[in-house]
Amino acid sequence: MYKDNLNKRIYSSIKKVVKNGPRDLHIPALGNKELQNINICIKENMVSSIGRFTNEFEERIKKLTKAKHAIAVTNGTCALQLCLHMLDINKNDEVLMPALNFIAGANAVSALKAEPHFIDSQIYDLGINTKKLDIYLQKILIKKNGVNYNRYTKKRIKVLMVTHIFGHPCNLDEILKLAKKFNLLVVEDAAEGIGSFYKKKHVGIFGIFGVLSFNGNKTITTGGGGIILTNNNRLADLTRHISNTAKIPHKWAYRYSHVGFNYRMPNLNAALGCAQLQNLSKFITSKRKLYLKYSSNFKNVDKVSIMREPLNCKSNYWLQTLILTSESHRERNKIIKFLNDKGFRVRPVWDLINKNRPYRNCQKMDLSEANMLEKKLINLPSSAILGEKLN
Amino acid sequence: MYKDNLNKRIYSSIKKVVKNGPRDLHIPALGNKELQNINICIKENMVSSIGRFTNEFEERIKKLTKAKHAIAVTNGTCALQLCLHMLDINKNDEVLMPALNFIAGANAVSALKAEPHFIDSQIYDLGINTKKLDIYLQKILIKKNGVNYNRYTKKRIKVLMVTHIFGHPCNLDEILKLAKKFNLLVVEDAAEGIGSFYKKKHVGIFGIFGVLSFNGNKTITTGGGGIILTNNNRLADLTRHISNTAKIPHKWAYRYSHVGFNYRMPNLNAALGCAQLQNLSKFITSKRKLYLKYSSNFKNVDKVSIMREPLNCKSNYWLQTLILTSESHRERNKIIKFLNDKGFRVRPVWDLINKNRPYRNCQKMDLSEANMLEKKLINLPSSAILGEKLN
Repeated sequence: MYKDNLNKRIYSSIKKVVKNGPRDLHIPALGNKELQNINICIKENMVSSIGRFTNEFEERIKKLTKAKHAIAVTNGTCALQLCLHMLDINKNDEVLMPALNFIAGANAVSALKAEPHFIDSQIYDLGINTKKLDIYLQKILIKKNGVNYNRYTKKRIKVLMVTHIFGHPCNLDEILKLAKKFNLLVVEDAAEGIGSFYKKKHVGIFGIFGVLSFNGNKTITTGGGGIILTNNNRLADLTRHISNTAKIPHKWAYRYSHVGFNYRMPNLNAALGCAQLQNLSKFITSKRKLYLKYSSNFKNVDKVSIMREPLNCKSNYWLQTLILTSESHRERNKIIKFLNDKGFRVRPVWDLINKNRPYRNCQKMDLSEANMLEKKLINLPSSAILGEKLN
Repeated sequence: MYKDNLNKRIYSSIKKVVKNGPRDLHIPALGNKELQNINICIKENMVSSIGRFTNEFEERIKKLTKAKHAIAVTNGTCALQLCLHMLDINKNDEVLMPALNFIAGANAVSALKAEPHFIDSQIYDLGINTKKLDIYLQKILIKKNGVNYNRYTKKRIKVLMVTHIFGHPCNLDEILKLAKKFNLLVVEDAAEGIGSFYKKKHVGIFGIFGVLSFNGNKTITTGGGGIILTNNNRLADLTRHISNTAKIPHKWAYRYSHVGFNYRMPNLNAALGCAQLQNLSKFITSKRKLYLKYSSNFKNVDKVSIMREPLNCKSNYWLQTLILTSESHRERNKIIKFLNDKGFRVRPVWDLINKNRPYRNCQKMDLSEANMLEKKLINLPSSAILGEKLN
């Protein structure tokens, strides 16, 4: 009886926010500027891997993030794979990453024949739990000739990949401190984080590499797309070179210096992205207002709260998140079913990656907090248009 | 003196064909239909991995090729990689492929940590030299429990990857016979072959898998794109599943059964492709006329000929090809330099793949014919619009 009441109170609060807006999880806002750019693309006959929009897109992202280099590719998974490849991650490596995470990060590791090694999260920012990780690494790492190995599996551990879950910046100060202590390279999976700032610096530029995504469900979209950020000149040049076909520049000869990945973002997709970027600050403002709307409408609903950005951070609030106080999958699923039956495309957070078939046998630390979070998080309709009128 | 004459005679013949048309190697022909489709995409707010155009594109390709299954992905390299992954190609494999070939095929093999093993070509169709390969395989293959191994490197040899160079179908009857004899799986790299037919059947459907490409330089383009063809139901289902994120269908839960590649072609790119496909037969007709034009204009130029489609084949004539009777790199390069200085973006065939740094130490058979061809082939301006008026 009481639980039915909770379902209904959640439903009613969501409805007050969404009104007649899209009940989907997240849809893009596309308009005339997008059409104009694509018209130019087609009229100029430049839709493929060479063209001014791909360059312009990279320049705009550099300006936004203050990254020294930005390399546009076909999507976030490919971007992560390329970063890890550049750091020589291979079958002899385990890559540390949160278990509470979209599976793409693990797939990028798998593509290189390496293995993910899963670490625990914390409720405060949904990021990795640095305190627990510190203790864990002291236990499992062994150093040989300055290189870290997992003392149990004998695999190398070189990279700590962190994710800004739902756009909320994770605790980069603590992460960088930990990385320094253990001599790990940080790769930021900022796929969900465009427009999010940690202490006034854009996410994705704190580690050796960072990655943004522009999939159709993200804050801005290029259809499919991702970008690699780095401040390292040497890595940037070679990443850019192999992100395409690794052709040696020559007026006509076709010769190649490296194995190329053919991941360059086509001009057609970048044309969409350039238009989208012009509206980014509007989208972020609106998405932050949406947070306030949900927050105020859920203020009087017991047993739930709305996920808020961490201190000293500005989150893009990519996906709005309801946090249940209960830790019951059963309760979570009942609420989600109830809301989906009413047409709201709410969803739980992903199952922890280590619970998916391909990753069941991977190394992992104690994941008690991630397990608890998995049972408590529900994403709400989050399109930018729900915050305020966009046009 | 005489050589200068040859340069000039070639220049003058090309000029008579190209007239005021594009001097580039190959540019796409994009128009209103392309714009209309993209308008729909944007108005329907469907630009990413879900959308009606990606499905429609696959259906249209199935109709054209008569393949049972068609799976649209981000490009031809990714398509080849996915096919080889589906056939379990890994670090223990060598994949047979022509040395005279675009490097993407080798890169797809490398992405899986396998190694290409290079085979010789023949001038007749620019495809692999099956007679030489037959003798070579008798020498190097050793069978253990029904599996082929290279008796020298001990690596498995399971796949023969063949390419329809410049759109000219290679000798599929001989290739299939050879594959049967040695128990090899055939993968057709038909990246350059859309609209090409071998004995009235579209290329790409003869092997276990075939791949088409829609890069910006191809006969039709999706910006960046490729498609996997297969008649095998089981392989098709799983390929489609892992070409995306390998998500297990569920109304809201996010669970995954396999490592996913995130290679699905976005709806935005497929929208372009659907429009392009409607003009394909017009493009092919025009490109075939272009061959006739070059052929007739070069008829009286000594020491050169124009590449002609093999018997019983209908080629799309993706790139028109001048064949020098001399086998001198020096002469070839002088001609190319002369023509480029005049603004014609002609180019030599690719350097043999085994001559590129990443592939110098790979296994290879005697490549004398490929080496000879490398010195003799020059691609001419080949855009569809050069054959006849397209609108």
